[in-house]
Amino acid sequence: MVTPDVALSLPPSAMAIYEQIRDLPIVSPHGHCAPEWFAEDKPFGDPAELLIIPDHYVFRMLYSQGVALRDLGVGVPKQDRDPRAIFQRFADHFHLFLGTPSHLWLAHTFAHQFGIAERLTSANAMAIYDTIDAALQRHAFRPRALFEAFNIAVLATTDGALDDLAHHAAIADSGWSGRVIPTFRPDNVLDPMAVEFARNVARLGAITDEDTAGFSGYLSALRKRRAAFQVLGATATDHAVLDLATEWLSPQDAAALFAKALQGALTSGEAVTFYGHMLIEMAQMSVDDGMVMQIHAGSQRSTNAAVYETFGVDKGADIPKRTDWVGGLNGLLNRVGNSAECTVIAFTLDETTYARELAPMAGHWPALRLGPPWWFHDSANGIARYLDQVVETAGYYNLAGFNDDTRAFLSIPARHDLWRRGVSLHLAQQSARGLMHADDTAVLARQLSVDLAVDAYKLGGM
Amino acid sequence: MVTPDVALSLPPSAMAIYEQIRDLPIVSPHGHCAPEWFAEDKPFGDPAELLIIPDHYVFRMLYSQGVALRDLGVGVPKQDRDPRAIFQRFADHFHLFLGTPSHLWLAHTFAHQFGIAERLTSANAMAIYDTIDAALQRHAFRPRALFEAFNIAVLATTDGALDDLAHHAAIADSGWSGRVIPTFRPDNVLDPMAVEFARNVARLGAITDEDTAGFSGYLSALRKRRAAFQVLGATATDHAVLDLATEWLSPQDAAALFAKALQGALTSGEAVTFYGHMLIEMAQMSVDDGMVMQIHAGSQRSTNAAVYETFGVDKGADIPKRTDWVGGLNGLLNRVGNSAECTVIAFTLDETTYARELAPMAGHWPALRLGPPWWFHDSANGIARYLDQVVETAGYYNLAGFNDDTRAFLSIPARHDLWRRGVSLHLAQQSARGLMHADDTAVLARQLSVDLAVDAYKLGGM
Amino acid sequence: MVTPDVALSLPPSAMAIYEQIRDLPIVSPHGHCAPEWFAEDKPFGDPAELLIIPDHYVFRMLYSQGVALRDLGVGVPKQDRDPRAIFQRFADHFHLFLGTPSHLWLAHTFAHQFGIAERLTSANAMAIYDTIDAALQRHAFRPRALFEAFNIAVLATTDGALDDLAHHAAIADSGWSGRVIPTFRPDNVLDPMAVEFARNVARLGAITDEDTAGFSGYLSALRKRRAAFQVLGATATDHAVLDLATEWLSPQDAAALFAKALQGALTSGEAVTFYGHMLIEMAQMSVDDGMVMQIHAGSQRSTNAAVYETFGVDKGADIPKRTDWVGGLNGLLNRVGNSAECTVIAFTLDETTYARELAPMAGHWPALRLGPPWWFHDSANGIARYLDQVVETAGYYNLAGFNDDTRAFLSIPARHDLWRRGVSLHLAQQSARGLMHADDTAVLARQLSVDLAVDAYKLGGM
Repeated sequence: MVTPDVALSLPPSAMAIYEQIRDLPIVSPHGHCAPEWFAEDKPFGDPAELLIIPDHYVFRMLYSQGVALRDLGVGVPKQDRDPRAIFQRFADHFHLFLGTPSHLWLAHTFAHQFGIAERLTSANAMAIYDTIDAALQRHAFRPRALFEAFNIAVLATTDGALDDLAHHAAIADSGWSGRVIPTFRPDNVLDPMAVEFARNVARLGAITDEDTAGFSGYLSALRKRRAAFQVLGATATDHAVLDLATEWLSPQDAAALFAKALQGALTSGEAVTFYGHMLIEMAQMSVDDGMVMQIHAGSQRSTNAAVYETFGVDKGADIPKRTDWVGGLNGLLNRVGNSAECTVIAFTLDETTYARELAPMAGHWPALRLGPPWWFHDSANGIARYLDQVVETAGYYNLAGFNDDTRAFLSIPARHDLWRRGVSLHLAQQSARGLMHADDTAVLARQLSVDLAVDAYKLGGM
Repeated sequence: MVTPDVALSLPPSAMAIYEQIRDLPIVSPHGHCAPEWFAEDKPFGDPAELLIIPDHYVFRMLYSQGVALRDLGVGVPKQDRDPRAIFQRFADHFHLFLGTPSHLWLAHTFAHQFGIAERLTSANAMAIYDTIDAALQRHAFRPRALFEAFNIAVLATTDGALDDLAHHAAIADSGWSGRVIPTFRPDNVLDPMAVEFARNVARLGAITDEDTAGFSGYLSALRKRRAAFQVLGATATDHAVLDLATEWLSPQDAAALFAKALQGALTSGEAVTFYGHMLIEMAQMSVDDGMVMQIHAGSQRSTNAAVYETFGVDKGADIPKRTDWVGGLNGLLNRVGNSAECTVIAFTLDETTYARELAPMAGHWPALRLGPPWWFHDSANGIARYLDQVVETAGYYNLAGFNDDTRAFLSIPARHDLWRRGVSLHLAQQSARGLMHADDTAVLARQLSVDLAVDAYKLGGM
Repeated sequence: MVTPDVALSLPPSAMAIYEQIRDLPIVSPHGHCAPEWFAEDKPFGDPAELLIIPDHYVFRMLYSQGVALRDLGVGVPKQDRDPRAIFQRFADHFHLFLGTPSHLWLAHTFAHQFGIAERLTSANAMAIYDTIDAALQRHAFRPRALFEAFNIAVLATTDGALDDLAHHAAIADSGWSGRVIPTFRPDNVLDPMAVEFARNVARLGAITDEDTAGFSGYLSALRKRRAAFQVLGATATDHAVLDLATEWLSPQDAAALFAKALQGALTSGEAVTFYGHMLIEMAQMSVDDGMVMQIHAGSQRSTNAAVYETFGVDKGADIPKRTDWVGGLNGLLNRVGNSAECTVIAFTLDETTYARELAPMAGHWPALRLGPPWWFHDSANGIARYLDQVVETAGYYNLAGFNDDTRAFLSIPARHDLWRRGVSLHLAQQSARGLMHADDTAVLARQLSVDLAVDAYKLGGM
């Protein structure tokens, strides 16, 4: 194995901790890999298709410096793309990533996955392209082989409520030992502001054989879908919300808003109210069926209208905004928060809420755990800020460990490695500052790397 | 004296500063100790009653991990409690405090107050219980003896406006040399949203022999009560406010809102308006009588309705929220803020306001001083963030030193010790970074430990 | 040259970087020096007039500790001032600046500009006064000589839209080689809340020979004024806004609001709407004429009414407030943000927006660059927080380098020196942490010191 180009370096005290956790299995309880990769186990495409075109972390940065998205292959059919030109363009701008976590992830991937010892430059771009391209033809770079080489114990995908889960069923039926499980993400049948909400709800009814024209049938349909996901191994649900607000409505009021939602007649305030109520319904179903509830709040999606109209969602223009967790979760936590059987994991993009809101809340409510630093914040400094700001008030045991939240499969080892390095650095500093003993650091390193995620997501013993 | 189990460790440069301040008297100008302890000087109760049951920092953490509050003795009459079982349960979960300031305070208390060299574990819990229990029977562990052993120069309690101050009078009459002084906290007669506001105001009238059915009698009654507190040594008032807003009303408008408040007829907006006006009245009385005004803003109290209904207030569910200091203090500061005789001390739980709002405001207004890191933030990192974020804009001399704000009497030395260590670390770093001279660090260490608090709270020379 | 009294000290790894950039020319693309200094090249006044009276960083701190502004010469006609007494008073309170950037800037100025090796104290105040006063009589301390001694490559001033630019024209005509350029700041003809808005717009019409009673004449007048600034070297516009909100209006709606604004009849909501529209008009003119657009948001001006009424603006009572950049720039960026030819530079006083909003936005929008840490935040910690919080998401190349934003001409070398030291420290740490190579640090040090500012402000090659 080649030494990576760049990686968060560790002083000896932190290295001693890191060496205890570096080779532990990867637990990935939240992410966006495609289940068909593991169902079909076909080779990945070319280097541009693998590393650049789907990764909004990567192309947003080049776009911000004037490179057109089409010139990076975004929105261009495969047959019209020139992957070598795309990769060359990426290499020509590689300096733009200096200081960013993408730089670390890419360097780690080049070094560890492809054995490339040189740094990517304009001059060696085509040689490196060829190295990667050749590797991708080999059996060792098929999805299942990589999954095993990465030592992944469990990988959760994210799947819409209307997804038929055929790929997950195929994985289960295949006899392959890899544990790839779905996650129930029902945003498009819960949030009345979703595109084609009424049509989605009708499809939900068709899939579950319930009459979703009425509110009670709608709830039954949701319960059935949760159960179907559980059959294929799901342990968690996932919910995105922009303006977090949860208030429990009477059954009559909820049903009335639902009826209006199906007609597309809700005001935007009513839509927020209805979605907030449905989040509580989900939380209550979690108490019943044991699924862990993840809430991601505060990402303003697709803020660039021109990019959205041409290229669609997930194109690097999702920007975090302020979030009020105290007010926003008030209704939900006062319904289910005192239940230790229920687990709600909160993810924020608003770091100001770490010490002010989320850590005190996680340090009180039995049901609440704090998710890891999310999205822009799973970086070296982001991890340090997170641990520095949440641990003093929440402790370690109210955290949910780490998850990589990525659709860039090859970066999974790099992301967990960065977290483990960050954790080791943090714990070594805690020990050096006199705040804990060396034997505490060993226990906590393992907790933060594996155990807390397993526990929070109810993934069973590892 | 035994070396504490864990404590913020200091490199030699910081240790050299710390050694100059470690043994200075403790000035505790804001806290929640009970004056009857010092009036009556009875032994404290058992270890659970002393260290666990009243400390919401402690039991909230165990509650967050599924331990029932009743199983910790919270809300259970003394005769129904098993203090040994409570202490065992606490010891069984002691790892939950890793990384939190409670861990440091408890470790310091065990080591320094009780000479316990071992770390608390499930195995030694009963032995440690016995050690503490035995110590509490000794005269040296009576409140006055501890007060003297702790080298406390002055300790301020917090007392409601309707409190008869009998315990304070008893202390004054006792001939004991310890300086324990009251603080005037009139929230329940100023804030119309307070429980039983009208009844409280009526009692205020009865106590002061004023007709508090009218606004001018109400103001006179408040002035009389302030004077009564001052007779017993009080130098400060204290005010909690959730949504900070201060606007000066005409006497007619204020009187009209007061009349409506007595009838319980204010809208919530009017209640905020009236309370904001009364905070300015308090500030103006401060200009007249010289009492220092403390404003604590931004704690959303009792956010867990079920816990509140069963166990009451102060049960670990008070969560910080965002605070607007620029807008919120605008009315008050434009009435009294240019008076250097007046001192207003602002406490925030919203760290985002340190550098953005409070430091610039304290660096401008003659009347304004910035209180120390409050509540969740008087931790090792919290102290570091505070000093890093406020000093560059406010300087050191616009700070109000430290206060422990605690009802956990035995933790007072630990809390001041952590502050003094944090200050020493900060100053040593400032010197190492070239930002000040060694002789500056000596002066500032003393200022931050003792002098600034004495000066801000008008406690006279030490 | 004398070693400065205090300065951010650098470990060897950072010093090695610093030595590569310490002597690079100063690029000062945004500030508040008076162009007449360089047009007339007269001696500066006495030490109090130079260092204390105009510097709100300095007198605000003394005011906060009870020194009257008049006793510092603020608001006092020159003939009525005693500059020696003012300087003595300043020296008597010099300890108040400990820990603040003013301390560093003043110490640097005393040491580097005036060769004063001693620290300012009450005892040596008059001797130091005499040293400075004597120096100011010498030709080497004339504005142009200092400009050259400071190695300033370019200095931008800030000039109102109605300014006749006579001083800039005089500089251009003088044959002097110093590059001093204006910046177009049209707040008082764009913001309907500005004092005497209608009269300002009428004067704009008179200056440009356009009929500014109508909206299209008003736009033409603005275009003409921009062009007039460009003729004298301006490359940028500058816009202050309190509550950032930008929404594109139809020409009819904009014209109607403009007509109402001239009558002083806008509601405050309409005034915000109109100003927001005009910011977009400015951005579109920038696309046409290539001027860089600077937006400074979130300073609540003159919060102390008594000080404002007596002494006017810029008296140390401008306090930062929260800013919503995602919502606030939405309208503007969706009109011009995808144009790489357009450059919008955003300055914030709300550090919570660094990682949450501005870095993600700058890492996406081609038109957006992030300005340096502003006002209270161009301090040692402020610089560190900025780099730590923005780089991971924005990278380095979406930053606009540094600017000093000062009216304190003698502090310009000190301010750029602090930035360069802060940058060197940051880059050395990045390298030590394994996050970049040594050769990257050399390139980035130069970029952050000079090149990014030149590029962002379109100042041509250096």
